[in-house]
Amino acid sequence: MPKPLHEPVDAALIPRFAGHATFMRLPAVASAEGLDVALLGIPWDGGTTNRAGARHGPREVRNQSSLIRRVHPVTGIAPYERLAVADVGDLAVQPIDPAAALRQIEEGIARICAQGALPLSVGGDHLTTLPVLRAIRKADPARGPLGLVQFDAHSDTADRYFGDNPYTHGTPFRRAIEEGVLDPRRMVQIGIRGSVYAPDEHQWARDQGVRIITIEEFARRGPDAVMAEVRALMANAPAYVTFDIDGIDPSMAPGTGTPEIGGFTTREAQAMLRGLAGLHIVGADVVEVSPPFDIGGITALTGATVLFELLCVLAENRAEAG
Amino acid sequence: MPKPLHEPVDAALIPRFAGHATFMRLPAVASAEGLDVALLGIPWDGGTTNRAGARHGPREVRNQSSLIRRVHPVTGIAPYERLAVADVGDLAVQPIDPAAALRQIEEGIARICAQGALPLSVGGDHLTTLPVLRAIRKADPARGPLGLVQFDAHSDTADRYFGDNPYTHGTPFRRAIEEGVLDPRRMVQIGIRGSVYAPDEHQWARDQGVRIITIEEFARRGPDAVMAEVRALMANAPAYVTFDIDGIDPSMAPGTGTPEIGGFTTREAQAMLRGLAGLHIVGADVVEVSPPFDIGGITALTGATVLFELLCVLAENRAEAG
Amino acid sequence: MPKPLHEPVDAALIPRFAGHATFMRLPAVASAEGLDVALLGIPWDGGTTNRAGARHGPREVRNQSSLIRRVHPVTGIAPYERLAVADVGDLAVQPIDPAAALRQIEEGIARICAQGALPLSVGGDHLTTLPVLRAIRKADPARGPLGLVQFDAHSDTADRYFGDNPYTHGTPFRRAIEEGVLDPRRMVQIGIRGSVYAPDEHQWARDQGVRIITIEEFARRGPDAVMAEVRALMANAPAYVTFDIDGIDPSMAPGTGTPEIGGFTTREAQAMLRGLAGLHIVGADVVEVSPPFDIGGITALTGATVLFELLCVLAENRAEAG
Amino acid sequence: MPKPLHEPVDAALIPRFAGHATFMRLPAVASAEGLDVALLGIPWDGGTTNRAGARHGPREVRNQSSLIRRVHPVTGIAPYERLAVADVGDLAVQPIDPAAALRQIEEGIARICAQGALPLSVGGDHLTTLPVLRAIRKADPARGPLGLVQFDAHSDTADRYFGDNPYTHGTPFRRAIEEGVLDPRRMVQIGIRGSVYAPDEHQWARDQGVRIITIEEFARRGPDAVMAEVRALMANAPAYVTFDIDGIDPSMAPGTGTPEIGGFTTREAQAMLRGLAGLHIVGADVVEVSPPFDIGGITALTGATVLFELLCVLAENRAEAG
Amino acid sequence: MPKPLHEPVDAALIPRFAGHATFMRLPAVASAEGLDVALLGIPWDGGTTNRAGARHGPREVRNQSSLIRRVHPVTGIAPYERLAVADVGDLAVQPIDPAAALRQIEEGIARICAQGALPLSVGGDHLTTLPVLRAIRKADPARGPLGLVQFDAHSDTADRYFGDNPYTHGTPFRRAIEEGVLDPRRMVQIGIRGSVYAPDEHQWARDQGVRIITIEEFARRGPDAVMAEVRALMANAPAYVTFDIDGIDPSMAPGTGTPEIGGFTTREAQAMLRGLAGLHIVGADVVEVSPPFDIGGITALTGATVLFELLCVLAENRAEAG
Amino acid sequence: MPKPLHEPVDAALIPRFAGHATFMRLPAVASAEGLDVALLGIPWDGGTTNRAGARHGPREVRNQSSLIRRVHPVTGIAPYERLAVADVGDLAVQPIDPAAALRQIEEGIARICAQGALPLSVGGDHLTTLPVLRAIRKADPARGPLGLVQFDAHSDTADRYFGDNPYTHGTPFRRAIEEGVLDPRRMVQIGIRGSVYAPDEHQWARDQGVRIITIEEFARRGPDAVMAEVRALMANAPAYVTFDIDGIDPSMAPGTGTPEIGGFTTREAQAMLRGLAGLHIVGADVVEVSPPFDIGGITALTGATVLFELLCVLAENRAEAG
Repeated sequence: MPKPLHEPVDAALIPRFAGHATFMRLPAVASAEGLDVALLGIPWDGGTTNRAGARHGPREVRNQSSLIRRVHPVTGIAPYERLAVADVGDLAVQPIDPAAALRQIEEGIARICAQGALPLSVGGDHLTTLPVLRAIRKADPARGPLGLVQFDAHSDTADRYFGDNPYTHGTPFRRAIEEGVLDPRRMVQIGIRGSVYAPDEHQWARDQGVRIITIEEFARRGPDAVMAEVRALMANAPAYVTFDIDGIDPSMAPGTGTPEIGGFTTREAQAMLRGLAGLHIVGADVVEVSPPFDIGGITALTGATVLFELLCVLAENRAEAG
Repeated sequence: MPKPLHEPVDAALIPRFAGHATFMRLPAVASAEGLDVALLGIPWDGGTTNRAGARHGPREVRNQSSLIRRVHPVTGIAPYERLAVADVGDLAVQPIDPAAALRQIEEGIARICAQGALPLSVGGDHLTTLPVLRAIRKADPARGPLGLVQFDAHSDTADRYFGDNPYTHGTPFRRAIEEGVLDPRRMVQIGIRGSVYAPDEHQWARDQGVRIITIEEFARRGPDAVMAEVRALMANAPAYVTFDIDGIDPSMAPGTGTPEIGGFTTREAQAMLRGLAGLHIVGADVVEVSPPFDIGGITALTGATVLFELLCVLAENRAEAG
Repeated sequence: MPKPLHEPVDAALIPRFAGHATFMRLPAVASAEGLDVALLGIPWDGGTTNRAGARHGPREVRNQSSLIRRVHPVTGIAPYERLAVADVGDLAVQPIDPAAALRQIEEGIARICAQGALPLSVGGDHLTTLPVLRAIRKADPARGPLGLVQFDAHSDTADRYFGDNPYTHGTPFRRAIEEGVLDPRRMVQIGIRGSVYAPDEHQWARDQGVRIITIEEFARRGPDAVMAEVRALMANAPAYVTFDIDGIDPSMAPGTGTPEIGGFTTREAQAMLRGLAGLHIVGADVVEVSPPFDIGGITALTGATVLFELLCVLAENRAEAG
Repeated sequence: MPKPLHEPVDAALIPRFAGHATFMRLPAVASAEGLDVALLGIPWDGGTTNRAGARHGPREVRNQSSLIRRVHPVTGIAPYERLAVADVGDLAVQPIDPAAALRQIEEGIARICAQGALPLSVGGDHLTTLPVLRAIRKADPARGPLGLVQFDAHSDTADRYFGDNPYTHGTPFRRAIEEGVLDPRRMVQIGIRGSVYAPDEHQWARDQGVRIITIEEFARRGPDAVMAEVRALMANAPAYVTFDIDGIDPSMAPGTGTPEIGGFTTREAQAMLRGLAGLHIVGADVVEVSPPFDIGGITALTGATVLFELLCVLAENRAEAG
Repeated sequence: MPKPLHEPVDAALIPRFAGHATFMRLPAVASAEGLDVALLGIPWDGGTTNRAGARHGPREVRNQSSLIRRVHPVTGIAPYERLAVADVGDLAVQPIDPAAALRQIEEGIARICAQGALPLSVGGDHLTTLPVLRAIRKADPARGPLGLVQFDAHSDTADRYFGDNPYTHGTPFRRAIEEGVLDPRRMVQIGIRGSVYAPDEHQWARDQGVRIITIEEFARRGPDAVMAEVRALMANAPAYVTFDIDGIDPSMAPGTGTPEIGGFTTREAQAMLRGLAGLHIVGADVVEVSPPFDIGGITALTGATVLFELLCVLAENRAEAG
Repeated sequence: MPKPLHEPVDAALIPRFAGHATFMRLPAVASAEGLDVALLGIPWDGGTTNRAGARHGPREVRNQSSLIRRVHPVTGIAPYERLAVADVGDLAVQPIDPAAALRQIEEGIARICAQGALPLSVGGDHLTTLPVLRAIRKADPARGPLGLVQFDAHSDTADRYFGDNPYTHGTPFRRAIEEGVLDPRRMVQIGIRGSVYAPDEHQWARDQGVRIITIEEFARRGPDAVMAEVRALMANAPAYVTFDIDGIDPSMAPGTGTPEIGGFTTREAQAMLRGLAGLHIVGADVVEVSPPFDIGGITALTGATVLFELLCVLAENRAEAG
């Protein structure tokens, strides 16, 4: 039985600057019950090693998402006709105690999974993805470790920071591999670039089987070839999609904590996101949008558009699966 | 029978940057039924003669109002313990047709009045106050024309702009006097300053009986003396309070369309707002907050704090009246 | 008999930051008499459905245009040696009454046409193009409906907004087709992208014969192939060129009301503009530069450079025609 | 015989954002012939020891001056009814060779004086005042050394910078005293503050007879008492008024090269400027407005308003003298 | 035996924009050995409950401090002639683990104290003051609990946040009182204002004997009377001075995490700081300067000037004590 | 005998926002003795014809360079393991007297050369490169005139500005050719674009043998082909590399005085910089980073990354040469 559908406020009737800012101008609902996809925010950046601010990401992505209309321009998909989707608000995560925060995030996502909805979240820094992955992994243990499609400037598979600290936004995917949450042989990281701490910094990840596509390789091959490889790698197995906004060039996404010049363009990003069609996606996020470092809201607008592209892919895949 | 009360989200439990942005972090409700005071936005600036942008005011005042806590620091009043107050959203006003917009605003306020709530709104440009006043005036015709306490750099009692245009944000109070909505002998305008079009620009208003307190007079007498005069003038008759953010000095409220240097300070503004205690207030607004011209959100924060001061005065007066 | 020529102030003699800001540092003249091309501003944005501000476009494009020198770097054309061109100022359009504004714009352009000059204007929002087209169309009725080359993120061929409002910056080209001002079979729109209200949103335009080149098609074919098609489509018939700055990627033109990520680059834009050589251009504009949303003047600089490219094409075509 | 008068564009007819930006929206004229007061810009900052940018001052003050209306709010004076005043443009000063620049400025002002107009200029850094003073001094040698009323955070009477450099924006008034251009016993400097290079930094000036009113003294005595002293000191002898925008607190005038916290407010500045009534003013300027360091144009707006206050004082004095 | 003195780079010889940014352009030294006063940064904001960013405070205060010259304008004191003072760099505090960070700060300050220098630091959020106080307290146990002069908008004596978290920037002084680090009967808090969580929010502090001077009381009495009371309260006993930049009005110090309108001005702040002369100061800090929220560096400039005022008071007191 | 090596502060131990800002977080040293490469700043922009501000470049590039890690992501080169490199501070150049400034710069570089280090500097405007080239040329006269690889939007080979001024940032390479400092037949300029003063503006340069690769040619051929040509042209002869940040597109490097739209991307810039491997580089610089016009530090970050790419090429070439 299909779930009841929700529609965004129509900007051709009520102007975009009017009304409460929710993701895509969708209704704000109290729980994920009855939803196929739960849009939510995870306003926490306690794993950030340099410039904090991603805690403010959800609110600004909501603000800018009022610029998004209801239908995808290329596929013609209206996700709200296919999926029950709404804005379930932000997880209530306190900013002071990192260990407690990771638990709060995991519990929040677990609740959404238990209510039958797929989480599509806006961070927060990239460490927020770790408890999200843990919750999704535990929600269906039979499914086994998850695949990962990661758009990012950084591999985020470092081991320790600041002496012996295992949990920062530079380490989530190492932890997730170690914990059996992710299957490294079905992990692909696209856009990796920027100076590194050591020549062998990515060796551990590669040794586990992680496929790292540097920006240089990406520039040579282009989004279509890269995404064909991604689809082949993921096949039909369950995969999570994580989009670190710093994968995009800082001219197009300046509002982030660790910018690296020479990134992929938004046009390339959109081409890649559309290439996710057909994957078995079990959750997705957009992270590291940091409004205090943003300029004119452009990063939040980019984040909102990435969020919409992800939602449309989920709707498209649902349609094909159905 | 008291109406059910609402409380803001507690920032000591859930951080201020989390959750949907509503006025004061209060619940968003669908109608003003059951409310004493309805917080609402009027996102319209079609009466602006120079720099538009106040249409974006409600959203940013909501964002910044998450910095406001629940109790007034001087009076100790917790307005939410005395008044049923919530965020009823924005009036749906289209930005293209000014005449239709004025009707939409008047109808929206009329609805709130009919539901028994007092409107406390955030504009929008100052022309939005005209239809608000019309609706309040008509909601209780027996009450007669209203008094007005206006904090502002400009008198807004001009006659025509751009040839023969009677409705701009420079003319609302002339129209309101002409229509019998306001009683000019119980109107006071505080903070008036800035270059003028003609030496006799304020003569019409003065001839009707409007009391204009220029910034120079204000500077000589101070907020206490000025507010004593205001209270004497208003006595117990019904009055509306309108706070044009450009009354405040542009260093403290740069985000507005028609800044005039040499304004009153926020400290002076707060002293004056607290001096409204005891008045019979039938509605109030904060207007001309224009986020595209704001700097670091300071004007929206000032607007949100003015809104809270107004709410506390309403609660204080209610308590005294009760 | 050639008209008297005007030259910009020479930045190698008088620094660019000195003097009154006029378009290209050209003389400000009181009328278009004696000009081949009249540079003018149309500071009006009353058709804007979301973020106003394009009313401030002409002034900032003038400011930034002081960075432009007198000779085109690729063609070597010095337009001021071939065309009598000057800055005729802004049309005096009031911001309050949209219907009156459309009349004021049409009359202003009609006057320029009657004085024998071709209008090259800076908006203003995209609705300003409608009265410009009407005036040019009427100035020479024998010429028939005009062709249109439109660089834009949006088709602007919607029907109604906010209930039943026929005139917004989302509708000008539908109105122009309906009125017989434009010939839809000689209309091409390049760069169209962004989420839409309905899957068939562009169907009406396509049914009339409008050629819509989406950003995806553009990315596949490149500027040279696209412009070859444009030239073939336009042939020698009279055409108007309209450049909505939001066609360019928001990283390069953030100062606009309705940004859509994934746009064409300035380098691509310049390649396309140079590809207009040979067309029979009867007028042109740059619209939707919105300084309140701009960052460091980059959008106004882009707008000024687009204006110069258009002027050079006009000079080149004149030379070839001559 | 009275000179022909000029009027600004009327913002109640043509919006403020329309048209070329000239000072006060006055006509741009080619020379000072026929003017009582010549408004001009001196876009040069080659004397700046730290943060350059005042070269861009005239253009931005022009932009912001479109917010100024035609009549003074307190005196009711419409300066354009009493004085022939127009915008004569900027002096053409090259930015590379400081010695040549000082000559260019002096020649430009000499020309204006010879044409019978009083120069009211916008800088430029404070070194620009030196050649202005030289030219005015020479224009009427019989008049003797001039008095000076200086609003400023800094005394600008240092001797040498960077080894042996006698001409910087920290030295103009020492040079002017040494050259006999200024009479130090009729010089007053108001608002002086900020850390200094040496405890006796102001001793030389004091030894010459310069009256230095520190911000601390100003705070104790207030603008009325201070200006009474200024008027007594100046009596009826010819005086120049120079307003360094950094005299005002940086919260109200952030766009300047050498900000010092704790300055006077704009309200205090306006009170002092109005206290200039009755002086025999032979020229005046507003300097050190530096747009690259400004925020939202607030400093340029403050500068434009100071310019208008000065103009109204000139008109008032003329009327009284007449 | 006097310690060797250090002098800042002289801006009259080498421009302020040149060279490495150190506090006051003083030498950067590797340790506090041989110093009377150690200028240092504590770049940590892990106690921030809302908007982080004060971690970037030290770097920006260093940048802006290059505007400060070597001599105090009122007292004529050149602190570098009386005190050996240099920039000892930042404490190396990791941003991830709050408990470890508090230990790192305490150890760093203990080291400076052991080297015989008085710490004058720039935060960081206000929780950084707690470990600083602990270290100073332990460095000389015989001295007993310390007095505190606190300039601030907030009392920072709350108990718990986010459930049961005892360490945030809202709680340091409650902890310090509980731990016997501070003597509450010699604590004074000036400038307290802003909405509160509960009417009795400051009751605990008052019950301990803390003297809270609200902004309203301050406005009535003025800086001189307030500081006379402070000096009487502190007498000759050892006291710490903490200056939260949010005590100053947000128009003058916008770059901070928890702005409250209606604060004291910089002029008032300077008057109060100068009123500290004669106190037995054992350490001092400037906290909560948050560059990501700053505008044009004005908050960092204010912070740097406050730092210089504190340094001059230390030099003055030393001289008097000596 | 190898020189002692220096290492940057490790951001995995001490956060990037901590500590004094030096280039790449390297030690600040007092002289270039013992260094292979001296990183230095040249904070001077007295040759700027329009928007000054590059004097502030070194400080902001230092700030942003704290984002750079120690190893190149593509080559795996850790330059600090191969070269002794440190931050020698800024040349002390006064901003007032241009002729003296050029001498000060030449003397400063001569000192570094005499100490045996290769200068890698951050400007400053492009005129600073002239005295740098003079010093390097004179340091080893036997070497003959130098080659030049110039990344830039402008050729900078004009003759005179503002009448007869031979030294501006538009003329350095004409002077260097005339003086025999550069060998024009081994000069290549990449990215040239933007409107010009005259059709034959580049003719003099081309006549001397300078190879100008316009942005249009670059766009056709791509970075690999262009750099192959550069390497063939330079062969093994000594060459200087100068990177004017305005070569990069203004969306990626807005903070510069003379932006021209349509530039190369950072990705293309990095590809070209890596193509410098194998050249005999005798010095290099990054110029025209102008923080007052920058947005969110993106230009300074780009400049810092270019600096790191240049450093890695020097290390790579050293290794190969060794």
